[in-house]
This record gives sequence, C-alpha cells and structure tokens, in this order.
Amino acid sequence: MEHFYALIMAGGGGTRLWPMSRKQTPKQFLPLVEDESMFRVSVTRLSPLFSPDHIYIVAGERYADEVKKQAPEIPEQNFILEPSARDSGPAAALGVAVIHQRDPEATIAILTADHHIADKAGFRDALASAYDVAQQGYIVTFGISPSLPSTAYGYIRRGQPLTQARGLQAYHAAKFEEKPPLDVAIQFLTSGEYSWNSGMFIWRADQAMAEFKRQRPDYYQQMTRIAAAVDTPAYQGTLRAAWEGFERKSLDYAVMEHAERIAVIPVDIGWSDVGSWSTLYDVLSTDDSGNCARGNAAGWIAIDTHNTLVYSGKLVATIGVNDLVVVETDDALLICTRERAQDVKTVVEHLKATNQHDLV
Amino acid sequence: MEHFYALIMAGGGGTRLWPMSRKQTPKQFLPLVEDESMFRVSVTRLSPLFSPDHIYIVAGERYADEVKKQAPEIPEQNFILEPSARDSGPAAALGVAVIHQRDPEATIAILTADHHIADKAGFRDALASAYDVAQQGYIVTFGISPSLPSTAYGYIRRGQPLTQARGLQAYHAAKFEEKPPLDVAIQFLTSGEYSWNSGMFIWRADQAMAEFKRQRPDYYQQMTRIAAAVDTPAYQGTLRAAWEGFERKSLDYAVMEHAERIAVIPVDIGWSDVGSWSTLYDVLSTDDSGNCARGNAAGWIAIDTHNTLVYSGKLVATIGVNDLVVVETDDALLICTRERAQDVKTVVEHLKATNQHDLV
Repeated sequence: MEHFYALIMAGGGGTRLWPMSRKQTPKQFLPLVEDESMFRVSVTRLSPLFSPDHIYIVAGERYADEVKKQAPEIPEQNFILEPSARDSGPAAALGVAVIHQRDPEATIAILTADHHIADKAGFRDALASAYDVAQQGYIVTFGISPSLPSTAYGYIRRGQPLTQARGLQAYHAAKFEEKPPLDVAIQFLTSGEYSWNSGMFIWRADQAMAEFKRQRPDYYQQMTRIAAAVDTPAYQGTLRAAWEGFERKSLDYAVMEHAERIAVIPVDIGWSDVGSWSTLYDVLSTDDSGNCARGNAAGWIAIDTHNTLVYSGKLVATIGVNDLVVVETDDALLICTRERAQDVKTVVEHLKATNQHDLV
Repeated sequence: MEHFYALIMAGGGGTRLWPMSRKQTPKQFLPLVEDESMFRVSVTRLSPLFSPDHIYIVAGERYADEVKKQAPEIPEQNFILEPSARDSGPAAALGVAVIHQRDPEATIAILTADHHIADKAGFRDALASAYDVAQQGYIVTFGISPSLPSTAYGYIRRGQPLTQARGLQAYHAAKFEEKPPLDVAIQFLTSGEYSWNSGMFIWRADQAMAEFKRQRPDYYQQMTRIAAAVDTPAYQGTLRAAWEGFERKSLDYAVMEHAERIAVIPVDIGWSDVGSWSTLYDVLSTDDSGNCARGNAAGWIAIDTHNTLVYSGKLVATIGVNDLVVVETDDALLICTRERAQDVKTVVEHLKATNQHDLV
C-alpha cells in the first residue's frame, strides 16, 4: 500500500462542547477523551499503517501553528492550509488535488480529527480492507452499527454484498440519508439495514478527481488550477485566487450522495463523534458511581453524586446531584443535565446574538 | 436610653456557607444578602437607636483589621479583641466586663453579626421595648416565630405574660430547649408555645455581672481581673493572662439556660440566621423562575432552570436544572441541591480531615 495516503480534515467547530470547545481552540485540539488531543490521537492511531510522509492534514490557516505543533513528525509540505473555512467539500477537494498531483496513483482515506475510536487496531484493519475494495473502483465508506435511533447522524442503507477484504464484508451503499426525524431513525434502527455515516471515505485519487469533474465541474476547475501550481512558487497565490471559487458544501452534499459505485464496510471499532457532553460521557471511563472527573481537577468531593461528568481545574464538591455535566473554564461555567446536552448550542447562539464573541 | 449599649459578637464561622465562608473570611464579613457585609449591616441597622460610641464589637484578634475597616465610625476603644476564639460565653463575659467597668449603669444588648433581619425598624423598636423590660430586672431575649419545625435552632417556651412595652408583649421564658429532633420540633411548632432562640439578649450590665457571679464564678473571677485593668496600661497583659481561665462554652450553656427572670419578646422582624445556602436562598429576592444570581456574575444564561441560586464571578450557563445551589470561588466550586445544603459542612470536615486547610 505504498500509494495509500491519509487526509485528516482538522477543521470544524464543536459548539456543543462549549465552554471547553471555542472558536480559537475547537474540540479536536483538546484532550477531551484521552491524554492527548483528539487531533493528535487521530494522527498517532494511523501508525504503523501510514508513515508520517503519507499523512496529510487539511486545516484552516488560523490553526496552522496548532496542527504543526501537535503533529511535528508530519512533513511541512503535507500541511494543506485553507485560506478560510468553507466546509468539508472544498477541504477534501483541495487535499485530493494536492495529493493526486504529487502521486497520481494515490488512494486517499479522508478522515476526521474530532471523532473518538476506541479500537485503533480494528480501525487500521478496516482502512487496509477499504484500500483493497477501493482498488476495485469503489468509493468506500465505513458504516457504524447504530446503537440507538440517533437523529444527529446521517445514515447509509446497505444494498447487496459486494466483496470481502481482509475479513470484512463490503456492501453496495444503496442510499445516503440525511439526519432523520426520530420516527424515521427508529425505522432505520429496527430494519437492520442502516449504518451511521461516519464521514470517512476511502477512494482512489484519480477516481475522486473524476467524481468531482462529473458532479462539481466548478470545483474541478479550481482543483486543476491548484494542482498545476502545487510545489511551485505560484501555489499560494493560485490557492487564494481559486479558493473563492469553491461553493461552501459538505463533502456528503457535494459528491457522496450522488456518487456512483459506493461501498460501505460495516465496522465495529468503538466510534463516537463526541458531538456533545453526553456522547463524550458515554465514551469516558467512570467510577462505581458512574462519575467521571476530567481536566486538572484539584479534587472532587462527590457526596451522593451519580452519573456525573466534571471538568474543572479547581476543587469541586457536589452533593445530591445526578446525571449532570459540569464544565468550568477560566471564563465560563456550564451546568447541564446530560439529557439536555444538545442544548449547549443554544447557549453559544445566545452568546453570538448578544455579541459576547470572546466567550464563543 | 443614654446607658443602652449594643455588643455585637462578630466571631463565629459558618462552615455551611463554604466555599464563600472561609476561616479567614467567615460569613459575617461577606455581602451574602445585602450589598454590604452582614457585619457592616449589623452595625448600620442599629442607627439611630445607638450612636457609634454606644456600639461595641467583640471579635477575635485575627479579625481586628477587618472589623475596624468595616466599621470605621466605631471608636477604637469599643473594639474588644479576644486573644483566641473561645465561643460566645467568654466573648459575652469579656464585653460585659469592659462595658460595665466604663458605665456601671449600662444596659447591654448582646447581638449577632451574622444574622439577617429584614425589618430593621422593627428590630430597633424591639430593642427599645427590650430595654424597658430589662429595667424591670429581666434578661430579655427575642423569640422568633417558627415558620417550620427546624432542628437547627434552640427553642424557648413562653410562660405567663409579663408586661407590655412599646406595643410588644413580653412573656416569662419558661424553658430553653436545645436543638430538638424532628418529632420534638414538630410538637414545639404545633403547640404554639415556642419561639426560636435568636441568640440575642438584652440585660442590665450589673445584673449580667451578678448572673455570671452566681452561675460561673470562674468566669466572674476573670471578669473582675479584666475590669480592674480596663483603660490602664495593664489591660492587654491582664486580658491575655485571664483569657485562658475562661472555659469554652456558649452563652446559652454558660448562663442563659439556668438564669432567673428571663423574659421573651416574640418578634416578627424577618429574622434568619442564614445558616446554610438554603436559608440564604429563602431570604434573597428571586426572579419569576425562582432563580437568584449573586456575586459579580458576568452573566447567567438560565435555560429551563428554576429555584436555583448561583454565586459566580464568571459567565454561568445552566440547562434543565432545578433547586440547585452553585457557588464558584477562586479555588473551589460547589454544586449542591438546596435540600442537601446542610451537608456542606461534610465537605469542610473532609477538607480538614485530608489536611487541605487552605481550602477551609
């Protein structure tokens, strides 16, 4: 697999993890689950399948210092910096264009920097399997077995079995479904035919270029401009000029929903998008009372306290509380029931609406 | 009433108001209820009944700077400093000895610095009434009408009516009762014969001296030593030598429970001992949702939050929580149900037991 590359998309926000996740330090740069940041973990868990020179990072220019500091083993030329945030469609197009220009035989795994994967060896095995399937001309995606009728994820319906590779079964991906309402999510879950869309895709670079050309000729035009300038002095200027030509779209919307020959490999790798304090709680280790302390907490005196998550740098005492999320930072304090963790985004919206941008 | 003096006992702790109330800054020095500290309010609410030169303060030496700073209008010689904390019996004995020495005709109102009184004019009227009753040879105490069967207060059983003074009825105080168990407290409440013991006493200084002499000759011996040295260069040395001779006792235990001729005047002055976050909540103004924000909170975004008290210097967001107390200081964060507010003392005990004295 000498032509296999990982392209980690390190953009994104994570407003539902406020007040830890901030515009300047979004969740992927925080050590929310493990001792290292989610971004750092997303790099290290690729070893030994990918060597550092086969790992690319796409991130906004504003995060350039952060990603380079957190991933010092990655060669300088593998950091691909977006002039501004334009969602995952343009980010993936940019990364594909650069890698394809440098290695026309590349196969690229488009990966995320802000998702937790408990089974890292299983993840690498799945990537290797996906590489094999991609060589058969498929865009391969990982399907996550749904554990509840979530309305927070997109779904993929499995079609006919396609092939087995390294012990994993690939299926034809019959349909991409947007985040469904609850009743539809329940149907999806009970049918047994659906997986959550993990947002990870493995495809050959030449096929990716062809898919952009077919579905998004406007993107493709800018991709060829950029590709022509890669590793020349004209690159920065060309990128800046081309960047405005990318319409803001997610990769799912821009390409995947109407791509041909998509395969889904159902995987059981302990995946979580860590999209809220509640889903974060679900992946953290807890004590006998179901409690979990994170951050540099000076100590936690938990009296009759259960199923509660606390992030704080100071001594915390809780008495008689259950199912809470408590997050204390230098300038803000959140206390929220786990059940209402989705509503943290309402707080961020309120802060924006009231021009308290330093707290966002 | 030119011989009427107030003696404010400014010692005491307030561990159930941790983490705001600390050993170095106990609750009476904090602006918990009003904009000024409880001690400061306990001075100003005496005006115009008492002029500053008729107000005495008893406090531990460690609080000397604090009380003088907070009550600059009080003459220097009216600050009576205890060499160490020995409970309210010795504190009252010391104050009585000093005042009686300076004015043998004094009547002294022994008052608290850490209780809230909503009706300040009513409080002064009650003091004037008590002064009159005290001239008839009674030790007068204020009885608070119990609003619930509290197990946190002592009770006083009313006996025969004695006299009316300035529109208030004084009764013979038939019995002092220690903090009762709940079933007894319920009996007290339903009988209608009991008042809470407010811990405030008004008595003539000569009668107080006589009562100490009769019940606590050991105290009395030290009191006469100290009195002889008042306003002489020997005072400090004498006080230090005498102080160790005072057994640690509350004033109730030391004298009041077995005093003769005690009168109780039931008063309705909006009294609260502010003994816990829950009782503090009860005296604070709340918004339509029953919420109350205190401290220099940068803001509070309260989403589906009810009957909750928040003290914090930073932005606070709460979602879906009810009946909580949230207190955030520089080095500690408390989250407690209002119902369990009494258990805050358990936290303080734990901190002491684990040698975290800087957090106590």
